[in-house]
Formats: sequence, C-alpha cells, structure tokens
Amino acid sequence: MTASADHPLYGHRHLLGIAGLNYPDIATLLDRADEAVDISRQREKKKAVLRGLTQINLFFEASTRTQASFELAGKRLGADVMNMAVASSSVKKGETLIDTAMTLNAMHPDILVIRHGAAGAAALLARKVGCAVINAGDGAHEHPTQALLDALTIRRHKGRLDGLTVAICGDILHSRVARSNIILLNTMGARVRAVGPSTLMPAGIAEMGTEHHVRLEDGIHDADVVMMLRLQRERMAGGFVPSVREYFRHYGLDAAKLAHARPDCLVMHPGPMNRGVEIASEIADGPQSVIEEQVEMGVAVRMAVMKALLDPRRNEAVAP
Amino acid sequence: MTASADHPLYGHRHLLGIAGLNYPDIATLLDRADEAVDISRQREKKKAVLRGLTQINLFFEASTRTQASFELAGKRLGADVMNMAVASSSVKKGETLIDTAMTLNAMHPDILVIRHGAAGAAALLARKVGCAVINAGDGAHEHPTQALLDALTIRRHKGRLDGLTVAICGDILHSRVARSNIILLNTMGARVRAVGPSTLMPAGIAEMGTEHHVRLEDGIHDADVVMMLRLQRERMAGGFVPSVREYFRHYGLDAAKLAHARPDCLVMHPGPMNRGVEIASEIADGPQSVIEEQVEMGVAVRMAVMKALLDPRRNEAVAP
Amino acid sequence: MTASADHPLYGHRHLLGIAGLNYPDIATLLDRADEAVDISRQREKKKAVLRGLTQINLFFEASTRTQASFELAGKRLGADVMNMAVASSSVKKGETLIDTAMTLNAMHPDILVIRHGAAGAAALLARKVGCAVINAGDGAHEHPTQALLDALTIRRHKGRLDGLTVAICGDILHSRVARSNIILLNTMGARVRAVGPSTLMPAGIAEMGTEHHVRLEDGIHDADVVMMLRLQRERMAGGFVPSVREYFRHYGLDAAKLAHARPDCLVMHPGPMNRGVEIASEIADGPQSVIEEQVEMGVAVRMAVMKALLDPRRNEAVAP
Repeated sequence: MTASADHPLYGHRHLLGIAGLNYPDIATLLDRADEAVDISRQREKKKAVLRGLTQINLFFEASTRTQASFELAGKRLGADVMNMAVASSSVKKGETLIDTAMTLNAMHPDILVIRHGAAGAAALLARKVGCAVINAGDGAHEHPTQALLDALTIRRHKGRLDGLTVAICGDILHSRVARSNIILLNTMGARVRAVGPSTLMPAGIAEMGTEHHVRLEDGIHDADVVMMLRLQRERMAGGFVPSVREYFRHYGLDAAKLAHARPDCLVMHPGPMNRGVEIASEIADGPQSVIEEQVEMGVAVRMAVMKALLDPRRNEAVAP
Repeated sequence: MTASADHPLYGHRHLLGIAGLNYPDIATLLDRADEAVDISRQREKKKAVLRGLTQINLFFEASTRTQASFELAGKRLGADVMNMAVASSSVKKGETLIDTAMTLNAMHPDILVIRHGAAGAAALLARKVGCAVINAGDGAHEHPTQALLDALTIRRHKGRLDGLTVAICGDILHSRVARSNIILLNTMGARVRAVGPSTLMPAGIAEMGTEHHVRLEDGIHDADVVMMLRLQRERMAGGFVPSVREYFRHYGLDAAKLAHARPDCLVMHPGPMNRGVEIASEIADGPQSVIEEQVEMGVAVRMAVMKALLDPRRNEAVAP
Repeated sequence: MTASADHPLYGHRHLLGIAGLNYPDIATLLDRADEAVDISRQREKKKAVLRGLTQINLFFEASTRTQASFELAGKRLGADVMNMAVASSSVKKGETLIDTAMTLNAMHPDILVIRHGAAGAAALLARKVGCAVINAGDGAHEHPTQALLDALTIRRHKGRLDGLTVAICGDILHSRVARSNIILLNTMGARVRAVGPSTLMPAGIAEMGTEHHVRLEDGIHDADVVMMLRLQRERMAGGFVPSVREYFRHYGLDAAKLAHARPDCLVMHPGPMNRGVEIASEIADGPQSVIEEQVEMGVAVRMAVMKALLDPRRNEAVAP
C-alpha cells in the first residue's frame, strides 16, 4: 500500500492539474470527498478542520458557481475566506499577476484558489507563494476540481470509473474541463471519446488516448456517460464560429440523439448551460441528468482537496 | 390562542410577501423582532442561533442597505453568509434565474435571500429550491421585510398599529414598498391613504382598502405617520416623468406641508433618499424623522424572520 | 509615564490621520503591531479579541491590498467583516456620503474603515457616526495605517526611527501616503527629504519640515531609507503629466541611482508598483527591497489599530 492510498495528495503541495496525479491519489481523494458529501447535507454544516486558516479566492475571471463552491467549502471547514474580485481592482492599475500574488502571499494565506485566463497562471503563482495553490481554471489548460467532481458523480452512480465509456462532446479545443477530464478518466481506466467537429478538436487529441468522433450519434453510441460542454462562442475569435441553430442540429443533445447511448447513460454538463444550444431542456431536466448533483459534489470535492493539502499531519512529508 | 401566536411564520416555509400573513403572524414576528433589537445594541453581537447554517444573498439588483442588513442579520445569528453579485457573473453568460437557483440549491443553502427586477421571481425560486426563500424585493410586487421594519418602527413609537392613519406618498405605482406596506397596515387595522398624482397610482388602489388623495396636504391631514417614497424616475420609462422641481413643489415633504399632519406625526422613508426631491433635508434630519431607526429595525426584523423560518423545533409542523 | 505609553491611541476614538498623534501614541502602537506580527505567522491565526463585533469596510475607491489587509486583520481578530463596494450601489442612486454613513451607522457597526476620493471624508464621517472610524485614505490628505506600516517596517530593520534619513521620492503633491509619512517621520525624529520635480511638490513642503531635492541622486544621497511613490498619471489632470520614459530616466529608481544611498538603504514602495516607471524590477525584487514585508506589516498594524480603538477597558477614558 502506497502512502497516497491513505493520504490523498500525499507529496503534493498544490493542486495545479490532474496531470501529475496517479491512480491512488485520485481514488483516495474521491473516497475523502464521498465522506465530505454528508457534511453539507446536515443542518449544522460547520467543521473546525481549517479553523483559523485563511483562504483567498483570486478570480481574474468571474464565475458564479466555482467561486461560490470554493467559498462554501472553505467556510464549512471553518476557514476565513476572502474573495478578491480582481477585475475591479489593481489589475486596472496595471499591476502584474505576480505582484498581486506576492502582495497576497505577504498577508499569510494558507490557501490561494486562482482562476485566470492564461494557461499556466496557477503554476506560475505556485512557484512564487508560500501557501497551497488550487487551480480553479487557467485558460484552456486545466480545471482539476471540475474533473474530480465529475468523477465523483460518475463513481457514485456507476460504482466505478474503469471500463466505462465516457463521451465528451462539443468544443474540446477551448475546454479546460475536457482536458482535465480526459487526463483523469484515462488515469482511472475509462475509455474516453472526444466528440465534435474537427475544428473544435485540439491537435494532439489522438495522443491523449481518446477516440475522435465527428458525428455526435457515433460518439455517444453505447456510452455510459455523456458530458456536454458549454459552447463558448466568445473564445472562438478568429476561428470557426458555428451558428447556434446549426450547432444544436448537429451537436445539441436531445432525446433522439441520446437514444444512441446506453439506456442508463448519465448526462452531465459543467454549467452554466446554454439551453437549446448544446443541450435540450428536456434532457437537462430529464431523468438521466445528474447536472445538479455535479454541483453538490463540487463542494464535497473542494472540501476534500483543501483538507488534504492543509492536513497538518502531512506537512513534514510534503516536498517544499 | 393559535399556534402562530407562539411561533411566528408557523406553517410558512418562505417569506415571499406580506400577502398570506395573518394578524398573529405579523404581531408575533414584530414581538420577536423587538427582542432582537437588543442583540445589535450590545458590544458582542454574535449569537449561535444559526451556527453552521448557510445563507446566500442572491441580488440581481444592487442594494447597499438591504443586502448589508441581511448580511449583518445572518452573521450576528452565526450563519455563514455568502453574497452573490449576480450582475457580474453567470447572468452575463445567459444562464436563467432557475438554473442559477438550482445551482445554488445543490450547494445546500439553508436560506436564500433574493432581490430581482421581475415580480414573482422569489415565488418562482421558492417552488424550485429545498430551502427557505426570503423575498428582498421582486419588481413592483412585494418587499415584505421593509413593511415589517416599518411596522416595527411605528409600533415602538405609537404602541400600536390599529387605528393609526398612515399616509404613503409618492410613486405608489412602481413601489413594492408601498404595496407591502398597504397589505400589512390593512391587516393590522391601520387606515392607509395613498397620496400622489393619479398617474402614479396603481389601477386597483381603491380595492386595496386605501383612500386616494391627489394633494399631499389633503393626504397627510391629521396623519399619525407619513411615509415618503423614493422618486424612481428610472422606472417611469414610457410614462409620466415629472421634473424634479415640479415634483418637489407638489409632493416634496417640507415643513409647511408637514404642518397638516398631527404634531406627533412620524416621518419615514425607505431610503435611499433624494433630498430636495421627495423630502426636504430639514424634515429628513428633523425631530419627527425616524428614518435611521427604520434601518436599525431592519436588521432586527431580518434576524426575527430568519430565526422563525429556520427554527428546528417547528420543522415537522411546516408544510412542505 | 503617560497613559498612552500603555494604551496606544489612548484618548482617540478614531484614527483619521497621523496628525494629532504624539510620539508615545505612535511608539506604543508600533510595539503592539510588532506583537501582532506573529499572529499571522502561525497556522491558526484566529483570535477572539473582537469576537461578535462588526467591522464595515466602506471603499468608495477600489483597492486590492488595503481592503484585503483590513479584512484579514478584522477576521483574524474574530470580527464579523462586511465589505461595501460603494461604487456599484447607492452612490449610483445619488445618495450622499453622509446618508450612506448614517444608514450603516444605524446597523451598529463597531468600526468603519473608509476610503474616499475626497480629503476630509473620514473626518466628516467620524463626526456623524457612533463607532470608531479608520481612515484608509481620503483624497490627497492622509493614509495613516500606511505610514504606520512603513514605520514598523523601518523600525524592525533599523531598530529605530529617530536620526534616520528617509527620502520620499516622486509625486508628493498627489500623495496621501507621502503626507502621512512626512508627519509620522517628523514626529518620530527622522529627517525627511521630499524628492521630485517642483511641479509635483505641494506648496508648503518646506514648512512640513522637509528638505526638497529636485534631483533623485541628490535626494537619496546617504539615505537610510528610500520610499518610491507610485506615479499616478490619472490624478494629474490639467497639470504637468510627464511621459513614462522621461519619468523613469530622471526619477525611476535603478541600481545606478540607488548607489548614491547608503549601502544598507532600505527600498520601499506602497504598491501597486509601476515597474519600469518609478522603480526598476531589479530594485523592486532586489536584496534591499522590503516591499513585501511592508504588506505583511500592514496586517499587523491594522490589527493593532483596531484592537486599540476597540479595547473595552479604555472606553470610559475616551473622549466622546
């Protein structure tokens, strides 16, 4: 039994991506998150695990759900949580990301949760600060807690991840959610299919161990899980920008298309949804949808990650 | 003695409006709010009543005083309070109110405080979520905690509500404050006069049990309480938009006009005031003004409402 | 021994500026801040000193670092902290500063931290509210906690303030940081030099007890401390606006210019920095820079100030 079977994220000081995590890291983290689900379901949701510790949410891009999820996760573990809405502050004055980070670091946070439009921003931060850094989305690179919450949702329904067929559908090219999910699902032994027009596929998609399907019906054939991605037209500047109507006709998940998947196929979406664009409302609100459960699992996963990174018993074992 | 004489909001899971509350509901809630006033007057203002519970303030319209009042009320009762400034987040991305609500609901809040520009938004939310919903203002419909804090302020000064003559003056048509106050004051046995030009009166004003007076001097004659409403020119698009100077001459409360009311008449305003528009500064800051006290009562009323809705002893008795 | 030697800010209900503080006030406050540094360096950073008290940060100008510093200071002392981002709320509706203040005051805060674009705003507030007011920057007037954190940083490195030569360089005219620092350093016995073009000097600079130097090299000659100010071109409307390139050539601190100061000269900056404008990156990140330490000291100083102003044992002794 490896150390990480008992201690999730053992040896990791930060959570910058799914890349770098091994099977026991992920499995143990999901076990811990499973236990954390019950905390939020009780009337009294407050634990003292992170009491007296300081969590700073540093969001350079606005996000209702992710910031709220991290904020509640921190507060329910007893941390003092401070939100920095950076768009409206020193960035306007021309301060660099690093200067902002060093300023916050000097205030002795224990954990920095960062979302930024540039790939690598979280890793850059992690090299500069003295506290744990959690990547809450950096450009088109990674969004590891999203992949973990997706995995937790699947595992609770299917009992496992290995051997499942998971179709990720839509704009893979611009999606950090897709990227983190592909890495995690490959690590855990699931078969991943990337589904969408070739213009929305990254160059090295085959090397990531995924099949590519252009037709949605082919891509979700006999799938156990279908993950629909948000169509982010604003990120497609300069490239191919499909019309909403055309996109829905070919790539919007409706009942007719979903019939190609297994009857017990789960339908997932990281949110916020464009109803009638990448997903029909009847499917989003239908019996196979676990979209709201994904949000619930998000709080639990973030509690587990923060607890793991800040566990005082593992400090001496962690690489500097 | 009815159950609600002991348990304010007994049988209510949400506070969506004053409509639907009966005399003992309101009277008991005011009694509890009266007790809560002292909490904020002490040096140590922290109670453990809502410890470990999660309150989310979901404000689709900005509001200094109402959001602050709910935030402090929740924090002083020990809740974890999270503010969602929705204008700057997923609404931009086209997410619907219901999707936002379901997302937050999946994070297991215990109480959602919502302000929204559309009448009925709070009721729509309440049908979808599993927690208590408090309407902090929905379009021109209701603003129940404002009416309760106004009633508490009056009752503390006059010792009663029944039999009092209360003149509500100004833009009744666009005012959720006026609407909630008219319903509450009628329920509690006060006589309500709606004062303002006919263009600023709702169609069914007579059926709401109020007298309508066009002249301010007539409307406040021998009144015990005068409530001035904020002139919200931005809400009058397409209709009659008075000039500020004209409005003040006819409907601005100054010393000469106030002389028509009873000498001990209270002057109220829900804020924020337009000084020199609907109220003269000499009156706003004068001895009959209880405008700041209204703000103080706001925190107490919100504490009482949240405590009542979340009292664990009444859960089994509450309709689902 | 005076009372203030034991009780920092004895006799002061507010902290509106450095003007009005005497030597023992400042020295005792720095002693208390020195003790508070360790609180933030521990894993568990939470004290119960201000438990149950309410702190409101009322920022009419956005500021990452100052608001964050006050927020963390308050939370680590156990206060309930509420941020009011006033730009996005009632100010839009035309409410006055005083009405906003009176509204917040009616909610019984214990401490109001205010930043405002107008000189005198904090003092105006202090005359109206019943709680302690801390000036977090008012126009070009004062920013007292910045001067205190600068003094604490210097004292920890040099062991003293009296007899040191401190050069404050740049746009003295528009800088509340410079003004508060000049008053503090004069009070504590340091020699202050104001360095910059005559167009960026206030009229009465000589009367403030400082030497004025136009050339940076002359101004920092043999200095113990060099404080670089942020070039705030947006504040120079209508006056002399230097080009960035010209400014850096004459007034940007680089290695060649810094060589004129003492070898152990500290380099300071209140942040956020314009790298390549008033300071070269090699200096900002160099061995003589204490810029990040200034930020750390900021939290400690604010903890000490809030604790001093709210110490229950001194309440009866404080002027009303």
